[in-house]
Amino acid sequence: MHQRVLSLASVLALSAIPLAAQEVGNAFSLTVQTEPYLEPHIPRPEQEAEAAEKLAALAEKTGGKPNILLLLVDDMGWGDPGSYGGGIAVGAPTPEMDLLAREGLRLTSTYSQPTCTPSRAALLTGRIPTRSGLTRPTLSGENPTTNPWSIEATLPGLLSDAGYRTALSGKWHLGEAEGSRPHEAGFDEFYGILSVISDMSQQLDERLYPDLVLRPERLAALQELSEAAITKGLKGQPLEVAEEVTSIDQLGQIDQKFADFSEDFIRRAAADDVPFFLEHSFARVHNDSYPAEGYAGKSPAGFPYKDAILEVDDIVARLIGVLEETGELENTFVFLTSDNGANEDLAPDGGFQPWRGGKGTTWEGGVRVPGIAYWPGMIAPGRESDGLFDLTDFFNTSLALAGVSETIPSERFIDGIDQSSFLLADNGESRRDAVFMYSENNLMAIRWMEYKIHFKVMLQHAARRNLDETTVSDVGMSPWVYNLYTDPKEQASSGHSRFEWGLPQALQRVQRHLATFADYPSTDIGLGKP
Amino acid sequence: MHQRVLSLASVLALSAIPLAAQEVGNAFSLTVQTEPYLEPHIPRPEQEAEAAEKLAALAEKTGGKPNILLLLVDDMGWGDPGSYGGGIAVGAPTPEMDLLAREGLRLTSTYSQPTCTPSRAALLTGRIPTRSGLTRPTLSGENPTTNPWSIEATLPGLLSDAGYRTALSGKWHLGEAEGSRPHEAGFDEFYGILSVISDMSQQLDERLYPDLVLRPERLAALQELSEAAITKGLKGQPLEVAEEVTSIDQLGQIDQKFADFSEDFIRRAAADDVPFFLEHSFARVHNDSYPAEGYAGKSPAGFPYKDAILEVDDIVARLIGVLEETGELENTFVFLTSDNGANEDLAPDGGFQPWRGGKGTTWEGGVRVPGIAYWPGMIAPGRESDGLFDLTDFFNTSLALAGVSETIPSERFIDGIDQSSFLLADNGESRRDAVFMYSENNLMAIRWMEYKIHFKVMLQHAARRNLDETTVSDVGMSPWVYNLYTDPKEQASSGHSRFEWGLPQALQRVQRHLATFADYPSTDIGLGKP
Repeated sequence: MHQRVLSLASVLALSAIPLAAQEVGNAFSLTVQTEPYLEPHIPRPEQEAEAAEKLAALAEKTGGKPNILLLLVDDMGWGDPGSYGGGIAVGAPTPEMDLLAREGLRLTSTYSQPTCTPSRAALLTGRIPTRSGLTRPTLSGENPTTNPWSIEATLPGLLSDAGYRTALSGKWHLGEAEGSRPHEAGFDEFYGILSVISDMSQQLDERLYPDLVLRPERLAALQELSEAAITKGLKGQPLEVAEEVTSIDQLGQIDQKFADFSEDFIRRAAADDVPFFLEHSFARVHNDSYPAEGYAGKSPAGFPYKDAILEVDDIVARLIGVLEETGELENTFVFLTSDNGANEDLAPDGGFQPWRGGKGTTWEGGVRVPGIAYWPGMIAPGRESDGLFDLTDFFNTSLALAGVSETIPSERFIDGIDQSSFLLADNGESRRDAVFMYSENNLMAIRWMEYKIHFKVMLQHAARRNLDETTVSDVGMSPWVYNLYTDPKEQASSGHSRFEWGLPQALQRVQRHLATFADYPSTDIGLGKP
Repeated sequence: MHQRVLSLASVLALSAIPLAAQEVGNAFSLTVQTEPYLEPHIPRPEQEAEAAEKLAALAEKTGGKPNILLLLVDDMGWGDPGSYGGGIAVGAPTPEMDLLAREGLRLTSTYSQPTCTPSRAALLTGRIPTRSGLTRPTLSGENPTTNPWSIEATLPGLLSDAGYRTALSGKWHLGEAEGSRPHEAGFDEFYGILSVISDMSQQLDERLYPDLVLRPERLAALQELSEAAITKGLKGQPLEVAEEVTSIDQLGQIDQKFADFSEDFIRRAAADDVPFFLEHSFARVHNDSYPAEGYAGKSPAGFPYKDAILEVDDIVARLIGVLEETGELENTFVFLTSDNGANEDLAPDGGFQPWRGGKGTTWEGGVRVPGIAYWPGMIAPGRESDGLFDLTDFFNTSLALAGVSETIPSERFIDGIDQSSFLLADNGESRRDAVFMYSENNLMAIRWMEYKIHFKVMLQHAARRNLDETTVSDVGMSPWVYNLYTDPKEQASSGHSRFEWGLPQALQRVQRHLATFADYPSTDIGLGKP
């Protein structure tokens, strides 16, 4: 029996369309590449002019640069907010997120990486993880053999150089060793946890982890790797322990403490009249969620994940309230998103999304996340768009809003695109032509227009954390083609023989993408298979 | 091997909680039954008073009764409107439905019957189909042996008696024989089709149905059963053919014609200053969809189903516009819903819902539908609720809004509940305690609180139209219990042994429900297995 299999390599060899040096694409979405180290973008001169005018008018009014507030929820599903179909329908109303969506721009095709560390790296570097080497979540106490922050140029670092005060509040999970902490990676201030809340819950929760917590020798093995603590640091100073975490009650209060820090940070920056970049990085709604005071059973569903959604929503409201109170709201770009799709392993107390798959996969359920851009006076209320937004775009967009796009260094390839005009122009459209989806160093799929083309797929119920070839498949009728408008759940590939017009277009983009690695090789920092 | 199987009968036998004569429920949702022939409801005196005040104030202002406009879309999925998570995300924006949802009350737990005819019967009679005998879609030219409309009291009939002008515009599908047409079942006027658009497309579309259309003897067999025509009728007068349908182009324009009639009907009623009840019953988005003039490829997705969603949305806007223009908007209760979930057989050109299953099943995907209540000045904007609303409730609610609840006859059991206070009071809550889900005469499941308890389930990919025992299963760990807040996709039953507190409560309701059949036996009209 001969199976018709097209490997990525053979598909690319079949792709006969010549690749222009400076231009890829076609009448459907003609992109230009302004620098060899920048991802090509779709030029939209009218909206770019409109956005530039808006920013100039604001700068004239305020006499300074705009603040940037990134609200990064951990593991929240696309469908969890009410404005994305969840909310009250799944027992956890999200009135504040819905308000931001209603009064701002609701993006329906925002793409993260499939897991935590890669997404966070993408946000801060503008680069897909296979370039930086931060291709998978680091394990407890694990550090790359090479410190990525000795190599990468980071958003907080560039903004700090541009006169911003920058802070990370909450979860880091991008290196625990000396030299790789947030305040050593560009942030002026850090208050939070170096890894992930489950590193701590596993040391404390004897009901969930009796095989660990009730066995001292195992517990000691984990504690040796990872200290359960809230830490803090200032640029140029050593890391300090703010608080040892020795009880589940402390884990329950942890996001309140991050919010306390964020509130204080905003108030100080406002008082000092200095522009700020704050990444408020929730520990919630990643497992394990323990209710903060007053939140146990507060959601209609009453389960910890759902109560955590309520708490996140309340903290969003609190921070927006602080912006308002300090007079900074109209000078602050707010972007709310999640680092990956809902974790399906947590069922029945996990997130919601209408898509196939979950965290750790490159099905839509793993990488399609809420994306809400809110900026009263600058982003028109009631907007929504299905235009593509990749979390790497947050890097370029933030630098553009700060007026320092030119500080992006030229030594590394930057996958992000400046989407400021998409977000700010009243009828702004995405300047992104395609999203490339990776699992570790595997190019799995591409989203182009409404199509998703999978070169490899992940088995849905396989172990997801430590991916290897056994859970990645490119046999069968590869590539698989899904029209996400007519088959949003990716249930039945329409087949490449029914995509004769589009497959060459998509492959041309893949070819162009893969060609970038020749001039800009990936970094191997010792986490994955280069 | 002994499997642990609890049949519905044995489960009910196990249920030890005594059944009070006039009261069922408990502290969680205490219901009262005001009449033996009425479904018990949860009394909510405060909101009932508030709703009564609002209605009295409106009547004083207008000097008459409020109009009622039912917008019934055919086969639209819960997720299709943007306000339910679809819209632009699935290639078919729905700005008008979203506006009604935003400016009105968005219901997230509205329940239909699993198929067309049963739902339409439920809306017009307030009774679940197993009582009226209208338990499944009638086939081409098929009529029940007993005319249900010689037995049932219908909403249009009761409203007509109360001084309303009533009309059905569009699809009927509740009997084609003389005596069982809309204008013989209570409506004063009728303009539309007696069965379903696919009866006609199958006579015309040689690309979709070459095995039929290109074979004269087969085609003749269908044409003998069912005439392809738009018909019309006035109460007391014979049915007339308004237009023979002989081309696909006519099918493309069919909803525009229904809209023309509806617009004219509203204008006439407004001019004559008579209150009206209009059921505007779309042929769309049931298969097969053909684009009306100007709609081919108009949606971002460009497929006929998606273009049909756009056309439906535009017609909704048009009819709301007519209400506004005629000065009737603030005196008209508008309710938009679908008759069942999306038809999964239509993939890839069908509807969207985040749930399990589709049309024809009692999984959420088959019976959970959009429900938008819109009434400027009477329903506060921005409301949303996950409270239970069954389409039978539309019957009682409409009669209550018309001030003629007392005209509900006492000979038949009425499953609907007056939900007018739920809809009108600013913080109104549902007065419904449970939803009973049937497939034909099989009691399949109950929704109570956030729980769904399945006594029988339907195999997801089995033939759905002519259900029989082979596609209905009650073996295994029946009943299956799903928490729809934590497991909205009904993926993993939490098991009845983890539902010790709730199962007896739910079963008490089932017991009470089944007991109603003793005093009020079902009608066998020759469609199903009584």
